[in-house]
Amino acid sequence: MKPFMDKNFLLQTETAQELYHRHAAKQPIIDYHCHLDPAMVAENHRFRSITELWLGGDHYKWRAMRTNGVPERLITGDASDWEKFEAWAATVPYCLRNPLYHWTHLELSTAFGIHECLNPQTARSIYDRCNDRLQNDPNFTAQGLMRHYHVEVVCTTDDPIDDLRYHKSLSPQSGFTMSPAWRPDKAMAVESPKAFCGYVEKLGAAADVNIRTFSDFIDALQRRHDYFHEQGSRLSDHGLEEFYAEPYTDTEIDVIFNKVMDGNELDNLEIRKFKSAMLYIFAVQDYEAGWVQQYHYGAMRNNNSRMMAQLGPDTGFDSIGQWQTARSMSRFLDLLDSEERLTKTILYNLNPADNEMVATMLGNFQDGSVAGKIQWGSGWWFLDQKDGMERQMNTLSLLGLLSRFVGMLTDSRSFLSYPRHEYFRRTLCNLLGNDIENGVIPFTGYEEQRVRQMVEDISYNNAKQYFSL
Amino acid sequence: MKPFMDKNFLLQTETAQELYHRHAAKQPIIDYHCHLDPAMVAENHRFRSITELWLGGDHYKWRAMRTNGVPERLITGDASDWEKFEAWAATVPYCLRNPLYHWTHLELSTAFGIHECLNPQTARSIYDRCNDRLQNDPNFTAQGLMRHYHVEVVCTTDDPIDDLRYHKSLSPQSGFTMSPAWRPDKAMAVESPKAFCGYVEKLGAAADVNIRTFSDFIDALQRRHDYFHEQGSRLSDHGLEEFYAEPYTDTEIDVIFNKVMDGNELDNLEIRKFKSAMLYIFAVQDYEAGWVQQYHYGAMRNNNSRMMAQLGPDTGFDSIGQWQTARSMSRFLDLLDSEERLTKTILYNLNPADNEMVATMLGNFQDGSVAGKIQWGSGWWFLDQKDGMERQMNTLSLLGLLSRFVGMLTDSRSFLSYPRHEYFRRTLCNLLGNDIENGVIPFTGYEEQRVRQMVEDISYNNAKQYFSL
Amino acid sequence: MKPFMDKNFLLQTETAQELYHRHAAKQPIIDYHCHLDPAMVAENHRFRSITELWLGGDHYKWRAMRTNGVPERLITGDASDWEKFEAWAATVPYCLRNPLYHWTHLELSTAFGIHECLNPQTARSIYDRCNDRLQNDPNFTAQGLMRHYHVEVVCTTDDPIDDLRYHKSLSPQSGFTMSPAWRPDKAMAVESPKAFCGYVEKLGAAADVNIRTFSDFIDALQRRHDYFHEQGSRLSDHGLEEFYAEPYTDTEIDVIFNKVMDGNELDNLEIRKFKSAMLYIFAVQDYEAGWVQQYHYGAMRNNNSRMMAQLGPDTGFDSIGQWQTARSMSRFLDLLDSEERLTKTILYNLNPADNEMVATMLGNFQDGSVAGKIQWGSGWWFLDQKDGMERQMNTLSLLGLLSRFVGMLTDSRSFLSYPRHEYFRRTLCNLLGNDIENGVIPFTGYEEQRVRQMVEDISYNNAKQYFSL
Repeated sequence: MKPFMDKNFLLQTETAQELYHRHAAKQPIIDYHCHLDPAMVAENHRFRSITELWLGGDHYKWRAMRTNGVPERLITGDASDWEKFEAWAATVPYCLRNPLYHWTHLELSTAFGIHECLNPQTARSIYDRCNDRLQNDPNFTAQGLMRHYHVEVVCTTDDPIDDLRYHKSLSPQSGFTMSPAWRPDKAMAVESPKAFCGYVEKLGAAADVNIRTFSDFIDALQRRHDYFHEQGSRLSDHGLEEFYAEPYTDTEIDVIFNKVMDGNELDNLEIRKFKSAMLYIFAVQDYEAGWVQQYHYGAMRNNNSRMMAQLGPDTGFDSIGQWQTARSMSRFLDLLDSEERLTKTILYNLNPADNEMVATMLGNFQDGSVAGKIQWGSGWWFLDQKDGMERQMNTLSLLGLLSRFVGMLTDSRSFLSYPRHEYFRRTLCNLLGNDIENGVIPFTGYEEQRVRQMVEDISYNNAKQYFSL
Repeated sequence: MKPFMDKNFLLQTETAQELYHRHAAKQPIIDYHCHLDPAMVAENHRFRSITELWLGGDHYKWRAMRTNGVPERLITGDASDWEKFEAWAATVPYCLRNPLYHWTHLELSTAFGIHECLNPQTARSIYDRCNDRLQNDPNFTAQGLMRHYHVEVVCTTDDPIDDLRYHKSLSPQSGFTMSPAWRPDKAMAVESPKAFCGYVEKLGAAADVNIRTFSDFIDALQRRHDYFHEQGSRLSDHGLEEFYAEPYTDTEIDVIFNKVMDGNELDNLEIRKFKSAMLYIFAVQDYEAGWVQQYHYGAMRNNNSRMMAQLGPDTGFDSIGQWQTARSMSRFLDLLDSEERLTKTILYNLNPADNEMVATMLGNFQDGSVAGKIQWGSGWWFLDQKDGMERQMNTLSLLGLLSRFVGMLTDSRSFLSYPRHEYFRRTLCNLLGNDIENGVIPFTGYEEQRVRQMVEDISYNNAKQYFSL
Repeated sequence: MKPFMDKNFLLQTETAQELYHRHAAKQPIIDYHCHLDPAMVAENHRFRSITELWLGGDHYKWRAMRTNGVPERLITGDASDWEKFEAWAATVPYCLRNPLYHWTHLELSTAFGIHECLNPQTARSIYDRCNDRLQNDPNFTAQGLMRHYHVEVVCTTDDPIDDLRYHKSLSPQSGFTMSPAWRPDKAMAVESPKAFCGYVEKLGAAADVNIRTFSDFIDALQRRHDYFHEQGSRLSDHGLEEFYAEPYTDTEIDVIFNKVMDGNELDNLEIRKFKSAMLYIFAVQDYEAGWVQQYHYGAMRNNNSRMMAQLGPDTGFDSIGQWQTARSMSRFLDLLDSEERLTKTILYNLNPADNEMVATMLGNFQDGSVAGKIQWGSGWWFLDQKDGMERQMNTLSLLGLLSRFVGMLTDSRSFLSYPRHEYFRRTLCNLLGNDIENGVIPFTGYEEQRVRQMVEDISYNNAKQYFSL
């Protein structure tokens, strides 16, 4: 029986162990997509407790607690930090086989050096020890944790209207770079006219443009895009239910824009046309600036309207949707490619039933200009766990080139999520180790060096080279 | 080479073996959903032959025989019991790797103590020995078999018009409880006006209500629901192609009801509105009675119209459908939740391509009131086999809490299907055993006790606690 | 560590090794579906270089090279044979874990006896040795390679207008049979009126029918079908996005035919009706001739319009589509079955998310007349690799009868693709070997013989018996 989570955790063969410890473990982290709060990074936030750090905003844990029969007061309510931690500690043993079980203990061990399992018996002691470090150890701050995990670059996720003040103010002593990334979802959310109009007003203010027409609107976005570029942004990201590639004319879009700006509801086709136009325009802006564009699609959000009213979005009431988007994804990418305006692109699907569709979509638009130009993003959200990572890497291997994969990102709101890179790298090395042991990958001479290089590339070099950060 | 189907069948590690034999094997069976005939149970049916018991209604075996080139006469025709058994015995060796191969031999060994493999050479001897026991051994009756497999509770599947006489007449000496479960599919089957009108008439008679309006119709259903409750029912079940959550008004439903009761065909939207209304009303009835509601969705039934005309439904001509039902499932559950009328719910999908969608849907409506309030049903029908069970349990583990799973049900028409619980429990213990051996689940101290308890919980305690039977 | 690709490649247990070497390896190949060029076969083509043989038309390799950042000139452009080979050799080490890595080395070892790995260091030597054999060894011709791989029958894929001259002219000394197979896709491609009209004209010429009406059109097709039958054809094949089973009348089809023949664009429903009619008529022709019909569905083709304009179709810009076709597939098969005109049928899906749907569809129409009458085709195109084969065989095992599977086909344009049968057989034996070692398949007495026979059947006998070639 292998001990739980020892130094060879997830590494089932000696080859995997050697690949991990000699090649993967040492690489720095390029966290090219996450949801960390730039203010907390720049101000080097100190956490008052492990409860704030772990349970302040982690809707994965909240979902698990609700499933375990924990009342909302102990999750997002007015209970004390200790009460909430205690409720979480009582839930943890029920999370066996859920990735939260591994994340929790990886975080305890790699950040705090605590190797016990969290459960009701150990809860108080672990709570006190974590809080002591967080409150008193000079290295247990936002920046300190990032340095501890060898973060070299972090890309946050920012709205076009954001002034990026925290990106500018980050001290060079932090030891890493923080770049903004452009996430203009609100600029295409015309399904809610009132919110959209409010957003357009703020955008105009941020860009110093008096937005009256669609052309003004795009002008304002372009100015903000330029501003993001000046501040070091080299990536965009889009959260979509599905892809949109409806035919439209410029006149139609002008009319739709005016209609929604007058506060009118749009019909479904108008919404789709507008989103199609915006996706195209965003993509051209990215192409012209030489950026990488990312698409996260397939989430069905805010399913629980009672809790939406109570807690707002991103509180644990989202799930995996079902959309037949292969055709529109293809049309969208083809439109850009046919104009030679398709920039480097990363596609993330949420429903693993789409895995093979997406993995084969890449090849349609690989053009030989850049190795791995079109990427399939690592297992996202619900799929960001060992099984999801393995399925993504296995399918990518079979239908594309794993060697060219830009690898892991955290996509997290938490400063303690960096061990997920370790998890990912162990999983990668384990897959390769098994294949080598089984005689399906050669491991001598030239090929041995290739495998070793491949581990380092997927852990670090590929992302370093792909993103011009 | 591990011997075929020995006492450690499916248990690949010592830990798995210990978990199974010490914890899982001993638990009684709560069979909370099945299709056993209440009359055969109450009347303690004695089977004339293994052919009647095995081949009288098992459309899984019929499909396998048709695939193997067996003519219909030897399957559902007028051939003798021996001829049919012989044809099945000749098919069995061609079923290697199909779950029927394991079910067949588990049933022979656990019920009859026969450990040989069924094939043309052993067919006669096995036939004679089985028939001898069935005809002469006092324990080889419907009730005797259920006691043999430690069935504690069985929930049958009953139409609202059923008088439940057999549930009332079951002798306390049977050693187990038989509860009815409410399956009102016919009360929403308005796509066939004639059959629907006939059904409404029978319902009126059963409920002693003169049904003229939709309101009368619901009143009659409520009376039957109350009656089922008095007879111990605490569960409902619904067989759906997909979920329905169309907006509708009460007036519209009244009009649709009158239209169909006048014998008119409904259009597709009317049908969907009516089904949406019925699903909602059924769910509120269940909520008010404190029941568990179950939804089996995704089967595409009666694909072969020639055989439908010849043999009727449920004869082996159904298959796995494709519906994009995430959105309507979400809307339906949200409507109930937003009114605080969502009762405990079990969702069963037939297409495994929906697994991750369903597994993440649960979390949207877990509200902390009951641990595991929203459940994902165990692998159903075509998925009720080792691979289907493993995929369901692995995905549930990754996206929810396996610990809170209510576990296995037989969903069978056969009195010999109870070894499927053994199969399920072995599979569960094997998954846990592998994880423990691989160092991905801790197995000392508090956590060891948790794992042991978890095995017993999923085998028995969770269902015991979840269903108020 | 198992050596790379030794004689027990992919065979993880001794049982698997024994099954493979004693039973599977010896069987000849019935290649019942491929895209070899009949002219190259009949004329016993000699290849000028390994570049022509490997890179002349293999869009799998082209895709991999584009993904690896190779410019188009070195892929399909005017670069020299050596330059192209060198670019491929530099890509191969980046293909680790992609099936191309295994295909490449299996082809080198089984055809050329070269056991080194292809990489930039070995490229020149391998290039020279291969070319020497291709240019000088009398056995290294199209026919020589097919004999080398024990091909007994090959079925090409031919348009109804093809004169089949090469099938007629194949020398009896070739040592194998080459049958045509009927692929009438162009006869239903009414979405492009101009191309369709041109095709109808050629069809009329080939059939010696003056086509004025739809009835003439069908008459011409029937004449060509008869001609194919005379030339030994016993199979048809259809490439579809999805199945079509729209209700239509004969008059409607006449009108649609006239409309498209007048050069008019059809609307979507007209197109679907026409395709529904053609699928039905083709199926009846096949039934009446006693043929096997094959359906390859689910590819989304020609996604890259820029490269389509530059290189044409089948150049590596196709991918896996998403269609909800369960219902129409069922209706189509049911229509034929209800008229007792459903011939032996093989269904191939491209999206593995459809696997369980297709695997359970088979059973709806198995009628006991022929064992395995309705077949699920082996992993196709992107799925034609170890994982895809395993998933297909595992799912077929669970939901049907693996024993009755007609097994592997190459579906290839390359004379070097025959080792894929070896790959398939090794994978099959490995699955069975693991099951036997794990005690889930019995392997003594009658059952041991059954397993041994099953290996030979799936490798060869089942196809031999299924196709009346």
